[in-house]
Amino acid sequence: MTDFTLTLADLGNTSAQNIETLFAQANGILGVRASLPIPSTESSPGSFINGFYESHEIVYGENAYGYAKNHQTMVKLFDLRTIEIAIDGESEFSLLEQDLRLEMATGILSESYRYATKSGKKIQIDLESLASHANRAVYAQKISVTALNFSGAVKIGKKARHIKPEGISEFDPRLKESSADLQISGNRYRTKNSQLDLFVKFDDFDETLSLAESQTFTFTQLYHLSRLNDFSDVTYDTLKMQQTAIFKDFWASSDIEIVGDDKLQKGIRFNLYHLFNSAGRDGHTNFAAKGLTGEGYEGHYFWDTEMYLLPFFIYTQPEIAKSLLTFRANILPQAQKRAAELEFAGALFAWRTINGEETSAYYPAGTAQLHINADIAYAFELYDNVTGDADFIAKNRKVIYEIARFWMSYGFMSARGFEIHEVTGPDEYTALVNNNFYTNKMVQNTFYYAAKLAVRFDENLDEALKWSTAANKMYFGYDEKRQLTQQDDSFLDKEPWEFDKTPTENYPLLLHYHPMKIYKHQVLKQADTILAHMLFSESKEQIARDYDFYEPLTTHDSSLSRAVYGVVASKIDRNEQAYDFFKAAATMDLDDRQGNASHGIHAANMGGSWLGLIYGFAGLQLENGQIKTSNHLPKAIKSLRFNLLIRGKMTEIFIKND
Amino acid sequence: MTDFTLTLADLGNTSAQNIETLFAQANGILGVRASLPIPSTESSPGSFINGFYESHEIVYGENAYGYAKNHQTMVKLFDLRTIEIAIDGESEFSLLEQDLRLEMATGILSESYRYATKSGKKIQIDLESLASHANRAVYAQKISVTALNFSGAVKIGKKARHIKPEGISEFDPRLKESSADLQISGNRYRTKNSQLDLFVKFDDFDETLSLAESQTFTFTQLYHLSRLNDFSDVTYDTLKMQQTAIFKDFWASSDIEIVGDDKLQKGIRFNLYHLFNSAGRDGHTNFAAKGLTGEGYEGHYFWDTEMYLLPFFIYTQPEIAKSLLTFRANILPQAQKRAAELEFAGALFAWRTINGEETSAYYPAGTAQLHINADIAYAFELYDNVTGDADFIAKNRKVIYEIARFWMSYGFMSARGFEIHEVTGPDEYTALVNNNFYTNKMVQNTFYYAAKLAVRFDENLDEALKWSTAANKMYFGYDEKRQLTQQDDSFLDKEPWEFDKTPTENYPLLLHYHPMKIYKHQVLKQADTILAHMLFSESKEQIARDYDFYEPLTTHDSSLSRAVYGVVASKIDRNEQAYDFFKAAATMDLDDRQGNASHGIHAANMGGSWLGLIYGFAGLQLENGQIKTSNHLPKAIKSLRFNLLIRGKMTEIFIKND
Repeated sequence: MTDFTLTLADLGNTSAQNIETLFAQANGILGVRASLPIPSTESSPGSFINGFYESHEIVYGENAYGYAKNHQTMVKLFDLRTIEIAIDGESEFSLLEQDLRLEMATGILSESYRYATKSGKKIQIDLESLASHANRAVYAQKISVTALNFSGAVKIGKKARHIKPEGISEFDPRLKESSADLQISGNRYRTKNSQLDLFVKFDDFDETLSLAESQTFTFTQLYHLSRLNDFSDVTYDTLKMQQTAIFKDFWASSDIEIVGDDKLQKGIRFNLYHLFNSAGRDGHTNFAAKGLTGEGYEGHYFWDTEMYLLPFFIYTQPEIAKSLLTFRANILPQAQKRAAELEFAGALFAWRTINGEETSAYYPAGTAQLHINADIAYAFELYDNVTGDADFIAKNRKVIYEIARFWMSYGFMSARGFEIHEVTGPDEYTALVNNNFYTNKMVQNTFYYAAKLAVRFDENLDEALKWSTAANKMYFGYDEKRQLTQQDDSFLDKEPWEFDKTPTENYPLLLHYHPMKIYKHQVLKQADTILAHMLFSESKEQIARDYDFYEPLTTHDSSLSRAVYGVVASKIDRNEQAYDFFKAAATMDLDDRQGNASHGIHAANMGGSWLGLIYGFAGLQLENGQIKTSNHLPKAIKSLRFNLLIRGKMTEIFIKND
Repeated sequence: MTDFTLTLADLGNTSAQNIETLFAQANGILGVRASLPIPSTESSPGSFINGFYESHEIVYGENAYGYAKNHQTMVKLFDLRTIEIAIDGESEFSLLEQDLRLEMATGILSESYRYATKSGKKIQIDLESLASHANRAVYAQKISVTALNFSGAVKIGKKARHIKPEGISEFDPRLKESSADLQISGNRYRTKNSQLDLFVKFDDFDETLSLAESQTFTFTQLYHLSRLNDFSDVTYDTLKMQQTAIFKDFWASSDIEIVGDDKLQKGIRFNLYHLFNSAGRDGHTNFAAKGLTGEGYEGHYFWDTEMYLLPFFIYTQPEIAKSLLTFRANILPQAQKRAAELEFAGALFAWRTINGEETSAYYPAGTAQLHINADIAYAFELYDNVTGDADFIAKNRKVIYEIARFWMSYGFMSARGFEIHEVTGPDEYTALVNNNFYTNKMVQNTFYYAAKLAVRFDENLDEALKWSTAANKMYFGYDEKRQLTQQDDSFLDKEPWEFDKTPTENYPLLLHYHPMKIYKHQVLKQADTILAHMLFSESKEQIARDYDFYEPLTTHDSSLSRAVYGVVASKIDRNEQAYDFFKAAATMDLDDRQGNASHGIHAANMGGSWLGLIYGFAGLQLENGQIKTSNHLPKAIKSLRFNLLIRGKMTEIFIKND
């Protein structure tokens, strides 16, 4: 089972912070970065609780009506991993060797470090740890300390250190200060502004041992962190046993076996492992863009969940899918309030949020990405079709109606049809455009689904008629002369971007050019029209023409891009191109291709790599509750095996080359 | 000469802060709000020095490459007007009567106040004051105190009080905290961040007098404030004499005599008076949007100067015009740096600035209003044509070349012609559009002017050819079916705004609707295409069609709108409609029609009211250095008389209604 094991040899970048992210452990509630036991200056240790954020007012240089009011920032919590060691009074160490071994099959991380003092005394630290999936309040460590070449007094301290706020100096709009001043009362930590409580139970370890040469001292430490002040007694060995069992079940239903490319095999398992670890489980938390592994994007929930992550969960872990969708149902009141504030009907879900309120401070690439509302409806529909969970849909169908009402009030009927203006599509390198193809397509789908539900539940029939009419008359821009789908009303009129004059170091463009310069050019950050082609039927010829036009204009500066282009390449039988995209997607974080895995995993891309294999290589399609597959395996791949759970029934799919 | 006198009876709103603005005195360098001698809780006293600002970093909720870095905020300086009075120990007063009389003919303000103590002792304070145009460092007051109904000890203190920073609680994006912590050393006040020096000379007055009933005590106070530590000895009487002479000269060249509407007559004089008072004179300062009368828009300089104020100065006060244009020439290095930062050629002038650097914190309605660059070129050309000041143009022609270079790099040649994308036109209720008609028209004009200069000075001829070609091929959108000029590529496709469902209190829209909602509708804040029609030739039929289409869609939420619609109404012989617009423009601040005269005068509108009379009623046109006029007087106006200075020669124009 070596393919379930991750070691440092698998990493393209072994900087301290990269290791912290990639070997981070999480259980959907609690996440802990795999920082060094004795931190270096490069270390960025910390732990996170899903949905535990601090808020502060957004300051605008120039304010306007209806802007998002507060930042919400997932708090970087305790350093649970630092070990304070002194050997005969010496407390400075240099790292000689490190070895990490993540057993993805069991969810257990094993680590071994050798350190030396200035005077040459060597010590080995062996760690075994887990973020428990059986008891999600617990992070557990087994620690062994071995005196390698000396006998003497070894002082060992093991405490949870509260991370104090520190500034971020780097220019990167995707990063934000994530620490908070916590108000401490007994074992309760409360955020000052958001007034959220966190209860902890830490038993510090602090002893001085007398170790003989080669002698090993072993102890276990359990750290409890929970939103509720309610802790159960557990032991390390029990937790480890439970963890192993839970992961066995996980892989039994969710593994993908791919023969012919070991790197891709490991990459996809690594991705599925992190997806399982960072997904919220309680209906009140969702899946942060960086999971629970880092502070990028402030721990916010985006459309990534619906369009990149939920397909995997819906098809293999429907209980998790249900919990993620329940989160949206639970924040419906905030979405209704937001729509009313902006003087629209129905519900307008936040582009980025933790607590349900909009927290995007730049609306052209935030609130204006209204498509998230159609994305949510799409995910509900997919869940509906795949799981057949009638109770859930019956209970939450109001979400869909309210979204449809929003779109009816935001769009308008013109001589051309139902139009939707002043939106930003998935491609954030154009903003505030009219009739974004992806958005209009998704809204059309939303209207149809809402109308179907209305008929199914025999209600809102007058509205259903309007929704169907709007869907039937939905306007889509098409360039007859070039036979191209228009990304939006003006995209094809834009000036070409001078790719040949853009040096490599100027990517991602957003860090090197003003938005106005980017927006006025034909240049894409990520799949947009092509994403619509991944989801909906269209002639292969049309898809191919659009693919050939848009792909060369796409920088893939967003990690959400390559996997989608890969699926669509498969769809038009360009299996080897698809393979190239998959390799990039499947190993994006392992190879640190985006250059910022240190800020946390690229969760959406991880979900995207699942889409690449299942929607792409295996050509999965769902029609009337029946699945269809087709073989798009590239030459190098001998076979692909995976499971899907359709309406409660597990189906194994096995696709072989020839 | 009663028409040169302003009293409280002329004001539509006599709140303390409104009076402070409208009776404020200024001399282009120093401005003092006409606050009560004994401030009430509503008072907002203060003085300003043109261009004296404090800067602090702009905080962005979400930052991006190339955003403006620092706020620049004109500092609200000393309260120079408060008189501390105590009668037999009583220091609390209630205001019984106030009478203000501004002699615009001489630039002298006379005020009389009656106050009473709780025990009924009444005192009269008479003030005479001026912001000296002869010595722009000086604000001078003559103060008389009369014991009306008592004999006793009157303690009088007269000091300059430094205004301490205070927050602004009101939601209004057009207002910003304008006080600063000043670092004081001797008579030098230095701003902490911008490191600007201000030197002061204040001789405090502090005496206790024994006054008999009806006895009057009179003294004078001179307050010196200057960017240079260099003060000359002056007396109040000399300053008053000089002031009277200077204003006599001013009115001799700049007055407009209008017979038939006394209110309009007073309104236009009031406007010209303030224009003369707030215009920068030294080539390093410009004309703040609110002049030197209030803190609205942070004391920033906008395109208002070029398009609304400079015509008046160019035609009647060319020395002031020259100084305002010199300011642009002096900030050319900042504009070149800004263009380079955004990776464009030439010079990109800041949308709003004091020190030449961009300080707009919301680029869609800031930097994106690139038209300011064409506006600057337009004003240089007008100055060139009207004054014939060849030396000035020879010295500063680089400004025009650099602007033309910017436009060549920002726009692009397509199959349709030379296009300019991703700009915001004058109408701020649409943003980031393609081929804004006004912008393209102004850029075309810039290209032609730059090419002409190149020929005149026999240089840059290769570039001149490109500029001419781009101008000749400039793209203008036109709706053939409706025979309408397109405000931009998408404006005519937008959803109509539901004016009938918009309650009166929801204007201005920007304070009540999210930008996305506003931008996606056919609704204008101000004249846009119609402004282009004011400036350039076009068939009357076309102008009339465009006017009839755009005017009903225009909220006139901007004070820059009505005057322009007025001029264009005159141009298409709708003299009575023009008259309605002029009345609104000429008395906008006197009647407080925008509701925020308390924040300062609406300078651009004041300039606009001059345009209304001269470009509109008198139909002024300039062709090859020759002026032409035509009679567009509305019925109620009997005659109009004014002067224009063409190439150094004063011409009196007299237009009579039959």
